[in-house]
Amino acid sequence: MRTAICERLGIEFPLFAFSHCRDVVAAVTNAGGFGVLGAVAYSPERLDTELSWLDERVNGRPYGVDVLVPGRIDASALDRHAHLLDHVPDRHRDFVTHLLSKYGVSAPGRPLTAVADEFGRRVTAAGASGLIEVALKHPIGLIASALGPPPPEMVTAARQAGVPVAALVGTVEHAYRQVAAGADLIVAQGTEAGGHTGEIATMVLVPQVVDAVAPTPVLAAGGIASGRQMAAAMALGAEGVWCGSVWLTTEEAETAPAVKRKLLAASSLDTVRSRSRTGKPARQLRSAWTEEWDSGQESPGPLGMPLQLLLAEGAMNRISAAAERGEPGALELVNYYVGQVVGQLDQIRPARQVVYDLVSEFGEAVERLERLSG
Amino acid sequence: MRTAICERLGIEFPLFAFSHCRDVVAAVTNAGGFGVLGAVAYSPERLDTELSWLDERVNGRPYGVDVLVPGRIDASALDRHAHLLDHVPDRHRDFVTHLLSKYGVSAPGRPLTAVADEFGRRVTAAGASGLIEVALKHPIGLIASALGPPPPEMVTAARQAGVPVAALVGTVEHAYRQVAAGADLIVAQGTEAGGHTGEIATMVLVPQVVDAVAPTPVLAAGGIASGRQMAAAMALGAEGVWCGSVWLTTEEAETAPAVKRKLLAASSLDTVRSRSRTGKPARQLRSAWTEEWDSGQESPGPLGMPLQLLLAEGAMNRISAAAERGEPGALELVNYYVGQVVGQLDQIRPARQVVYDLVSEFGEAVERLERLSG
Repeated sequence: MRTAICERLGIEFPLFAFSHCRDVVAAVTNAGGFGVLGAVAYSPERLDTELSWLDERVNGRPYGVDVLVPGRIDASALDRHAHLLDHVPDRHRDFVTHLLSKYGVSAPGRPLTAVADEFGRRVTAAGASGLIEVALKHPIGLIASALGPPPPEMVTAARQAGVPVAALVGTVEHAYRQVAAGADLIVAQGTEAGGHTGEIATMVLVPQVVDAVAPTPVLAAGGIASGRQMAAAMALGAEGVWCGSVWLTTEEAETAPAVKRKLLAASSLDTVRSRSRTGKPARQLRSAWTEEWDSGQESPGPLGMPLQLLLAEGAMNRISAAAERGEPGALELVNYYVGQVVGQLDQIRPARQVVYDLVSEFGEAVERLERLSG
Repeated sequence: MRTAICERLGIEFPLFAFSHCRDVVAAVTNAGGFGVLGAVAYSPERLDTELSWLDERVNGRPYGVDVLVPGRIDASALDRHAHLLDHVPDRHRDFVTHLLSKYGVSAPGRPLTAVADEFGRRVTAAGASGLIEVALKHPIGLIASALGPPPPEMVTAARQAGVPVAALVGTVEHAYRQVAAGADLIVAQGTEAGGHTGEIATMVLVPQVVDAVAPTPVLAAGGIASGRQMAAAMALGAEGVWCGSVWLTTEEAETAPAVKRKLLAASSLDTVRSRSRTGKPARQLRSAWTEEWDSGQESPGPLGMPLQLLLAEGAMNRISAAAERGEPGALELVNYYVGQVVGQLDQIRPARQVVYDLVSEFGEAVERLERLSG
């Protein structure tokens, strides 16, 4: 299975693996796919360490880095001396305190403010710039902008480094904007995907985006965790696929054990597109957290990005720790970003095995189509 | 392109066309596909006339009938002497009156009560039975249950007549239930589809349902209006595809002209899953009607099925007539059930041409996959 994108990036299969875990990225790249490290949770220093670790293990095979560049950010978030949570209204902070108490989440863990401040720096334009700078010092094969068009500085720096730029889109209009902003590769992500996602399903979105941006290559994302789904995505006109959720339950994934168990047990009906974790609609496991924010009587309603993200990260940090201690209330609240394919994830496999299974089932699906069409 | 279902039903292409319009059904069947007449809007007498018309035109080629059999109905709806709208709370009736006035919908048209009563009879078990009885007197090749498991009487009567039963599902659990209830063919319908639809996208739903009900054949529905999408659906494991929206803008479709213009102009973001037309979540064009019911300040919230359906049909009957007269308020309110593929529908084609385009693009998509997989 070789598409133009395979030639361009020097990979065997056009299978892109988005993961926050370096072990998954290395495993997929070494298996012939293309690992992409989600860098939003890292400081520039930590990212540098992670990428050096990768460089040592992939033996020159290509991998990429994904950064979240906020399109429009609260200027106050740029002031490194302020506490970002100071910008969160009292009733939203109070609601989080109420939730932690209602669900009996014990032990303070790290202070909300410290987590929020640390996390917040990275989802500002300044934070993203630091990550981009670090990433381009390593021999990366792709840099991706997870949300909104890549800023001009990112495109310029990537061009100078000879690194193609990828951008995620949920509508044809986004795709036009991203190509105009300099994206070399478009990831068309359907509503069934995990994380920030639009309303249009992969089946409808991909052909529209392919036609709109041709000859720019398009990867399909959302609803892809098996070879049949990969074949379907390619039939829609994609040059490859971009998968995220399927890696969360791999052997290598650093997914918290309590969350991993929830993912393995979940059906495809157990996800929801909710603004409760980042302020923008993001698909995630339905949990007491999403239910309380989205339809709880006392909910003040989620804030925008990035304030809701900061508030939620601070709280979720504490909730996750409590969930790992087996606290029932925390287990109800805890969740994670995942797409509707979560219903297919019912066993733990090595990431390498996931790649081989996908590629082999892809071949079977294409053979079946050939037989059917005579 | 021949699957087992083609052999079984005696068709050339596994392309099923759901339409309320007999001309579309005849055109698709005569082009080598399989037309399915949606009978919910018909009285048994009218259905008999429509099917006789079809019998004269398809020259023995197979077609089917789709009925909406309500799983659980308000017993009062069975009383043929009561006015069904009597069961609608005053505030819901008042809200409709308020909407008609707010949007300046002129002229009374047919009384709400008469339309609701007539329509209501057909969405009761008794109404559906009458349609099933009439349908099975014609040489139909398939009878489909659009919502909920086919009732035992329908399955028994169809078996006696040697007619396979199809049933639409939105989850794996529905699929198990439908097969247990006697369905011979499952239509797995993704959230992107028009009409009553669940939350899971076609890309995720189809492989799950295929694996769950094997060896029962599965058709894919939702997001399919082109050959690439048909190829994708078959790659997912479907034996064929079930399309509805794509026929609404065909030359033959009896879609009201004002609605047809709205459909041709709409993008894939212009649909919404709303309970405002039937009481159950159904995907349709976003319009002032869906917005007012779903998020208007004064909305009492939609009723359940079938009362909301009766109320909405009565009002929409009047709104449609006013929209055809060009009244601006009515044009804002008027809408119709359609899937996210509406964004692809930008020209009027004969239904026969849609079939040929689908089949020819399907072939191209499979050839491309063959080339890619070497």
